Amino acid sequence: MHNLSPSGAQVLLETLVRGGVTTCFGNPGTSEVHFVHGLDAVPAMRCVLALAETVATGAADGFARMSGTTAATLLHCGPGLANGLANLHNARKARTSILNIVGDQAQFHDYMDPPLASNTEAFAQTVSAWTRRSHSSLAVGADAAAAVAQARFGGGAVATLILPSDVCWGPGGPAGIPPAAPARGVVDEEAIKAVHDLLRTGKRSAIILGDDALTDRCQRLAHAVGAQSGASVLAHSFIRRIERGGDRPGIVRIPYAVTPARAMFADIDTVVLVGAARPVFAFAGPDGLSEPTAPGTQFMALGSPGDDLETALAMLCDRPDASPCGLDALPRATRRPEVATGPITPEAFGQSLAALLPHDAIVVDEGVSFGRSVFAATQHAPRHDWLQLTGGAIGCGMPLAIGAAIAAPGRRVVTLQADGSGLYSVQALWTQARERLDVTTIVFANKRYEILFNETRRMGLTPGASAGRLFSLDDPAMDWVKLANGFGVEAASAASMDELNDLLAAALNRPGPFLIELLL
Amino acid sequence: MHNLSPSGAQVLLETLVRGGVTTCFGNPGTSEVHFVHGLDAVPAMRCVLALAETVATGAADGFARMSGTTAATLLHCGPGLANGLANLHNARKARTSILNIVGDQAQFHDYMDPPLASNTEAFAQTVSAWTRRSHSSLAVGADAAAAVAQARFGGGAVATLILPSDVCWGPGGPAGIPPAAPARGVVDEEAIKAVHDLLRTGKRSAIILGDDALTDRCQRLAHAVGAQSGASVLAHSFIRRIERGGDRPGIVRIPYAVTPARAMFADIDTVVLVGAARPVFAFAGPDGLSEPTAPGTQFMALGSPGDDLETALAMLCDRPDASPCGLDALPRATRRPEVATGPITPEAFGQSLAALLPHDAIVVDEGVSFGRSVFAATQHAPRHDWLQLTGGAIGCGMPLAIGAAIAAPGRRVVTLQADGSGLYSVQALWTQARERLDVTTIVFANKRYEILFNETRRMGLTPGASAGRLFSLDDPAMDWVKLANGFGVEAASAASMDELNDLLAAALNRPGPFLIELLL
Repeated sequence: MHNLSPSGAQVLLETLVRGGVTTCFGNPGTSEVHFVHGLDAVPAMRCVLALAETVATGAADGFARMSGTTAATLLHCGPGLANGLANLHNARKARTSILNIVGDQAQFHDYMDPPLASNTEAFAQTVSAWTRRSHSSLAVGADAAAAVAQARFGGGAVATLILPSDVCWGPGGPAGIPPAAPARGVVDEEAIKAVHDLLRTGKRSAIILGDDALTDRCQRLAHAVGAQSGASVLAHSFIRRIERGGDRPGIVRIPYAVTPARAMFADIDTVVLVGAARPVFAFAGPDGLSEPTAPGTQFMALGSPGDDLETALAMLCDRPDASPCGLDALPRATRRPEVATGPITPEAFGQSLAALLPHDAIVVDEGVSFGRSVFAATQHAPRHDWLQLTGGAIGCGMPLAIGAAIAAPGRRVVTLQADGSGLYSVQALWTQARERLDVTTIVFANKRYEILFNETRRMGLTPGASAGRLFSLDDPAMDWVKLANGFGVEAASAASMDELNDLLAAALNRPGPFLIELLL
Repeated sequence: MHNLSPSGAQVLLETLVRGGVTTCFGNPGTSEVHFVHGLDAVPAMRCVLALAETVATGAADGFARMSGTTAATLLHCGPGLANGLANLHNARKARTSILNIVGDQAQFHDYMDPPLASNTEAFAQTVSAWTRRSHSSLAVGADAAAAVAQARFGGGAVATLILPSDVCWGPGGPAGIPPAAPARGVVDEEAIKAVHDLLRTGKRSAIILGDDALTDRCQRLAHAVGAQSGASVLAHSFIRRIERGGDRPGIVRIPYAVTPARAMFADIDTVVLVGAARPVFAFAGPDGLSEPTAPGTQFMALGSPGDDLETALAMLCDRPDASPCGLDALPRATRRPEVATGPITPEAFGQSLAALLPHDAIVVDEGVSFGRSVFAATQHAPRHDWLQLTGGAIGCGMPLAIGAAIAAPGRRVVTLQADGSGLYSVQALWTQARERLDVTTIVFANKRYEILFNETRRMGLTPGASAGRLFSLDDPAMDWVKLANGFGVEAASAASMDELNDLLAAALNRPGPFLIELLL
């Protein structure tokens, strides 16, 4: 009987497509076979296979960051979802819009505690702003519409819909109608005036732009405000996505390391947070330092994440008693540099990348220790977007690149990948090959968790035998060329800047994925 | 000042060592650098590095299964723990004894919500029977002693101790004294008599042995009871560890597939559960079938998991009105077979493995579809232990092998690895190389999630284009030899039984890890 009407899975899929959610990254299991079967009837939904869930969730994050829309994932009940939680943690910190569809046991079966039974809600709630279990195939359209709405709340959120398999195979009710994404919050005029007055008190001040204020336009407005008021304009150490390069004005990020970050704020009395959190170190040590700003610093918020920060900045810039906005007087970029030769250093790498980066590229940065200086060194590359690890859960780089490439076909994606972090999600290379994505990955192969040696010293400790054993990856050394080839991706290694320059020039103009192992 | 006294980390480590917990599998991060530093002062603790946390937790499970003691893990705050949850789900289902040490933000720093801040307790509680956050370096010894006790509760459990980094670096108090593991529960004599009477009613009955009743001795006792009463003796589809092979009597497992499992129980009226759960299918479909037993089947429990089931079975066997126990009349194994030739089939593979398996080997079985028949085909191999995926969360095979090899040096470990599952945790190969473990991995390379095609058909569906796209791994095909080489493990592929036989004979007698890609 119910074979004649669309299944719950079909209705769910139709609801997502209606809501503009048309790309799904996943790894299905037995509880999802009806969902997969439903895909045959809803061809508007594209489903991309990942070999491990952390690849799927990271790819969803990259897709949402670059498309500005909602990405879906398809995950296999509790443990499958668990495998994807780390990159969902990163997405939660980035406030990207992700809707997880998590299959589960049929409702009449669950109580018997089969092997894969678990507390799926508990897994989901660790990273989700909203979690619901759909209980009926007749209601799954409404549940899916609610899930889409929740994934767009506040500019972007992680929402999870748990889907028992009987809800998939049962007769579907009406498809849901996801509401339009809510308008961005309006920043109060009083708050704008207060910030304006604060910036005119003559105190030394800084403006920190949050993730929603890192568009080209927002940065120009902030720089204009800075030019009027003397405030420096900064971004956080970890950012979701920033538009930069070419003729854009550029922005300085707060350093990750404690000493230079404190130096940056040593003379700053007031900090304006434009949809941004107060700066904080990733970890604290026995020195008790939690933040780079000086004690007694005055903080003032201009809006919250998800608010219409561009309008707020424009109003801050255009206030009647303000001097001319000066957008045109902003510095223009110098010409892009030549490739670097000589020893392999982060600065040399950045120079060569700036020299060779195609126009409108997307750079995914999980470069960690070696990669940290590459950001500054690429300011004079042509216009590009720059994506980063946001939540500190390593293993995001190559997955983010998948989603970015799928969201922005025709644009070259370049992944700056620390080797230790990359090994968390090396399976991502296979999906890059399968989907023929134009992704160039450069692995910084220093064969150690360099950051942990550095952090050990920062804590005042001398790395001993245990650190040597647990922070080193050279026994045996990984062969990234073989790993990439094993997953179907062409690859080569470079042991000098000359080799790197040649490989990079070729790889950046070659269709499909390519991996360069930079031997450090 | 506090540099003069041992740190909290040292006191924690000393407490674990006192409690007999001396092996730890982990992947540390910044919040664990003081723990790693503490390892220099407590050399009795061995810490094994994994490239990804799912490898660490799976290895801990394998170590606990083979050593019969508690394994520790060292994981990096919420997201690091999250990456290890799937194999902890398997460990929870196996009731193995694992103590997770999870680092976290310093307590004075956490409230500022740095990038890696998360609800670490919520992650932990999804799989842990017990979770505690240690709040003081002076109390961490007592917390660690409690954690060891909880990891041994009921025969084995997953316990998690969350360790803020300031608890690690602060001055340690007294080391804790973990209590001895509690004695196993005694099965009530009335319950034993009731089972005895039930088995003598003349009804057709089956005895299902749970994980704590799969020792050689328990199986022999159960077979003797079966010989007396006419009951068949069975094990579940998924088992933690079973002693088998050589002169042992052998046991039949309940089939995974619905049709043969139902056929097995079609004539069974009563089922005795010896520390075992009632049998249940891994997943239910639209046919509404949840369990293989017939409606109206009478179930009776003989003890609970963790109880002293051997004594209960011996009493069942030796009751005054029972016929002679007959332990000596049990069937003896026939001689081991010759290697198989001809087409590659599961039965042929099993025959060759039985022909070549060294004495006292450990077989780790994540063979999934192709591997399902190998169990029966290896009954006539020499004595060995057989470990399996217990909770359905794939990716356990190669990690379990690490732990088993470290727990049982001198014994050969053989991993039967489905390719799709193996790709979840392929990083495990690196740890096998680094620790020079005597592990032989055979990858069943059918290049698809065969089980999902099968399950789709079982649900009455025809696998369509979406299933072909999402259940297939042949575009591009993985090259397992390159993947293994990339992680430092020697490897070769076999495309015929003759090639397999030669490779297997060589690999099983070769020190260190070796991987055979069996091309199906």
